[in-house]
Amino acid sequence: MTRIAELARKIPDIAINTAEKAVRTKSRDYFFWSPILKAQLDHVMADAVVSPKNESEVMRTLAACWELDIPVTPRGGGTGNYGQAMPLAGGGVLDMMSLDHVRSIDAGTVVVEPGARLSAIEDLTRPSQGLELRMYPSTVETASVGGFIAGGSGGVGSIRWGMLREPGNILNLRVVTMEETPRCVDLTGDAIDAAAHAFGANGVITEVTLPLAPSYDWVEMLVSYPTWSQALEAGWTVTHHEGLWLKELAAVEAPAPYQYFARYRKFLESGDNVLCILAAPNAVAPLSDKLKRQGGRIAYQSDQLSDTDRKGLTRLHHLTWNHTTLQARRVDPEITYLQVGIPVDRPLETLDAISRQFPGELIGHVEFVRASGRVYASSLPLLHYQNAERLLEISLWLEAAGCTCYNPHSYRLEEGMHSDVDPVQLQMKKDHDPKGLLNPGKMIAWENAEYRFDPAVHRPFPGLQKAKS
Amino acid sequence: MTRIAELARKIPDIAINTAEKAVRTKSRDYFFWSPILKAQLDHVMADAVVSPKNESEVMRTLAACWELDIPVTPRGGGTGNYGQAMPLAGGGVLDMMSLDHVRSIDAGTVVVEPGARLSAIEDLTRPSQGLELRMYPSTVETASVGGFIAGGSGGVGSIRWGMLREPGNILNLRVVTMEETPRCVDLTGDAIDAAAHAFGANGVITEVTLPLAPSYDWVEMLVSYPTWSQALEAGWTVTHHEGLWLKELAAVEAPAPYQYFARYRKFLESGDNVLCILAAPNAVAPLSDKLKRQGGRIAYQSDQLSDTDRKGLTRLHHLTWNHTTLQARRVDPEITYLQVGIPVDRPLETLDAISRQFPGELIGHVEFVRASGRVYASSLPLLHYQNAERLLEISLWLEAAGCTCYNPHSYRLEEGMHSDVDPVQLQMKKDHDPKGLLNPGKMIAWENAEYRFDPAVHRPFPGLQKAKS
Repeated sequence: MTRIAELARKIPDIAINTAEKAVRTKSRDYFFWSPILKAQLDHVMADAVVSPKNESEVMRTLAACWELDIPVTPRGGGTGNYGQAMPLAGGGVLDMMSLDHVRSIDAGTVVVEPGARLSAIEDLTRPSQGLELRMYPSTVETASVGGFIAGGSGGVGSIRWGMLREPGNILNLRVVTMEETPRCVDLTGDAIDAAAHAFGANGVITEVTLPLAPSYDWVEMLVSYPTWSQALEAGWTVTHHEGLWLKELAAVEAPAPYQYFARYRKFLESGDNVLCILAAPNAVAPLSDKLKRQGGRIAYQSDQLSDTDRKGLTRLHHLTWNHTTLQARRVDPEITYLQVGIPVDRPLETLDAISRQFPGELIGHVEFVRASGRVYASSLPLLHYQNAERLLEISLWLEAAGCTCYNPHSYRLEEGMHSDVDPVQLQMKKDHDPKGLLNPGKMIAWENAEYRFDPAVHRPFPGLQKAKS
Repeated sequence: MTRIAELARKIPDIAINTAEKAVRTKSRDYFFWSPILKAQLDHVMADAVVSPKNESEVMRTLAACWELDIPVTPRGGGTGNYGQAMPLAGGGVLDMMSLDHVRSIDAGTVVVEPGARLSAIEDLTRPSQGLELRMYPSTVETASVGGFIAGGSGGVGSIRWGMLREPGNILNLRVVTMEETPRCVDLTGDAIDAAAHAFGANGVITEVTLPLAPSYDWVEMLVSYPTWSQALEAGWTVTHHEGLWLKELAAVEAPAPYQYFARYRKFLESGDNVLCILAAPNAVAPLSDKLKRQGGRIAYQSDQLSDTDRKGLTRLHHLTWNHTTLQARRVDPEITYLQVGIPVDRPLETLDAISRQFPGELIGHVEFVRASGRVYASSLPLLHYQNAERLLEISLWLEAAGCTCYNPHSYRLEEGMHSDVDPVQLQMKKDHDPKGLLNPGKMIAWENAEYRFDPAVHRPFPGLQKAKS
C-alpha cells in the first residue's frame, strides 16, 4: 500500500484526489514566468491533493501525514510565481481553498479563513461597512488571503499602508503545527513576522485577522510623460505628499504601456511613459494639478469616460505589480522580470542609471510604496531574458549600484528575501515542524543554519536534488 | 465725523460695534502667552468690530473701508497666540464668526464658510457620512476653520495627513480682495499656498473646501516611560509604522505630565515621561505590544476605563499641541513655549542634547508628524522664561544645533515662519490689497521686499511703531 493510500485510510472523510491532471494542476503556480524556475521545477508534482474543509480536518490531515512521513505543501490560489506552493519533495498538496469563510467583520478588522479569495472578502466588507483590504496583490480576484500572507509582501495599497509585514497590517495569524498531535498556535505582534512570508514551511495558516481600511470609489488614472525620468520624478514627488490619498502609483517605461496594455492602447501613444494611479476622489484635483505641472498628460481618467471609451477596459490594478509582467507576457511570452529595491536616498539617479545601462533589455516598472516611514521606489523591471549567466551579471551590476535584488527566479525563501538565515523563522520551524515535512526545500536555514546570503552564489540545494531523485 | 462713523453711514445694515469692552475683547488673542508679545501688544485695540453675515457683506465692508482708508484685520475664533488677529494699526476688526455655514458635504469634501468652528463641522460630517476633519488644532472646539487656515500649520491628525499646507489638504480657498471694487478670487492648487497662513493679510477668506478623513472611534492612550529618551525612542519608532493608524502622538517630558495634566494625574506618577496617543481601534493591540516592548506602561486607555476613572476627564487632544502649554500655564502662568523644528536625520540625538543643555528651563514636548513623505519630531518645549536676551540665547543655541526656531514670540509672518520674503505671498498682497490695509504690520515683506530672515535679529518694525504712535 502506498503512503497516500495509507493516508486515505487514516482520514477517509477528508477529500483526497490522486487524479494525475488534478494533482499536476495543483502542484504548479506561475513559476514558469521564470525560465530558470521553469527548467528547475517543471517536473515537480505531488502524489495527491488533500482538501480539508475546516481547521479540524487540517489538524487531522497533518497528524496523519506526520505519522506517515508524508511531506505537506500548503497551497492557496496558486497565483505565486516563485514556486512557493510547489511540492518539491512530492507528498501532499494541502489545498486550503475550502477553508474560505469570513468569520467576522467588526471594529475595522476582519477575521477570515485562509482560503478566502481577497476580492471575496472585500465583496463583504465594502457594502456592509464601507471598508476594504488595506492592500492586495494584482491577483486580488484569484489569490487567497492565506497565500498572500504566506507568499506575498505588499501590493496595491502599500503606497499608503506600507508593506504587508509591517506592524499593524496583520493582527493575528493562527497556524497549525506539524506534529504527532498538531496544535493551534495564535500569533500576534512580532511573532507574526516569523510565520508570514514563510511559504507555510513553519505552520499551516488556518485563520487570519486583518485590519481594514476605509473604502473609496478610487479614481483610475493613466498619466503619460514624454520621458521616463519625468514620469519617475513626478511619481516620486506626488507620493511624498501625505495629503494626496492614493491607493496605487506605478510608473511603466515606454514602450511597455503602448505595446502591452492592449485594452488601454486607445488612450496612449507609442512613446508614453505612464503613471498608473488609483486616487481618492478628493485627491484627483490637486493631484492632476501637480502632475500636469510636471509635464504630464492625463491620458485616461475613469470618472471622465464616455460609455464607448469604457468598453473593453479591465480594472487599473491589472496593469500594476505582477500584472505588468503578465500583460507583457501576453504579448511577448519570453519576457520575465526582476524585483529590485532601489536606494532610498538616490532613487531617481539609480533608476536613470539602470535605464541607461540596460536599454532595451530592462524596461522600467516602478511601484512607489511606503515602508517604515519612508517612500521607496520598488522596481519590478521587465526583462528580455537571455540566459542565467546574463541574469546573474545584471543582478550583480544592480547590487554594485546599491540596489537589492529580491530574486524572483529562486524558490528559496532566503534568496527571494535577500537575507541570511532568519533565526526566528527557523526556530518556529523547529518548534512547529520538527520532522521538516512542511513545504520542504524552501527554507535554506533548515538544511544549513549557518547559511549566509551571497547574491553572486546560486547554490545547488539539497531540497531540490531530493525532489529530482 | 470719525472714520468709523463714516463707515457706519456707508454700511448701515452691517453690524458695527464700538463698545470699548467688546472691541477690546475682539482685538486680542492668546498673545499674552508670550511675555514678549504681551509687552509689545497689550495696548493694541481696534476702533470697531464689524460683523458681516455673508460674503456680500464682507465685500461691501471692504469696499467702504478701502474708500475710507480704514485698516481691516480679519478675525476668527481668536485662539491664535502670536497676535495674528490683532489690529496693530487700529481700524476695524472683521469678525468672521457669523459666516459659519457648512455649505455642502460631498464625495469626501466639505465646503464651509470661514467662521464655522472646527468641531461644529465634525458634528455634521461624522454622523451623516462617517467622516471627520483630517487635522485640527487642540482648540478644535473654539477655533474657526478660517482662522486655522490663516494662522495655523497643522495639529491633531498631522501624524497621518501631513501639515495643513501640503498639497491636497486644502482643496479650495475663496478670498475677497481689498480694493475699490472687491473681487472674489478662487484659489486652487499651488495658488492656495500664498493665502494660507498669511494671517488674512492678502485676502479675506470667505469660503474653504477641505478634504475629509474617515472617522474612527479613536482610542486615547497615555503611555509612560521612566526616561525621556525612552519615550522619544518609542514614539519615533511607532510613528514610522504605516500600518499603525494614529491620529496623534505627542511626547511630554517629566515632570510636566504629573504636574500639569491635573485631570489625568490619577493615572500618572511624578517621574513619568508620557506619550499621548490617539489610535484607531484596530491599531491598539499591535501598538500596545510595541510600546510595552520598549519599556512603556499603559497608564490610561480610554476604552478600558471604569466609570469612576472616567469622571472628570477631558479629551486627550487637550493635552497636546498648544494645549500642553495651556495646561502648564494653568498651574504656572509664567510658562511659555518655543516651536522648534528638529533635524530629520538625527532627531533623538538632538532632542537629548536639548534636554541636557537646558535642564529645568526647557521641558520637552514633541509632536510627531509626517511632512513631505518623512516623519518629523516637531518640538514645542515648555519654557521657564527669564528674559528676552535669554530667549534669544536659547534660540541661537538651537539654531546652531541644526534646529529651526519658528518664533512664537513674534507677530510677524516671516519671523514665525523662519523665512525670507515669500515673493508669491507678497505679490498676492500687492494684487489683492494695493493700499496695504489688510492686517497691517504682519508681513515684513510689505515694508521691505528685500528682507532676509536672520534668527539673531529681532528688528524694530514700522508697522508696530505706527500702531503705537
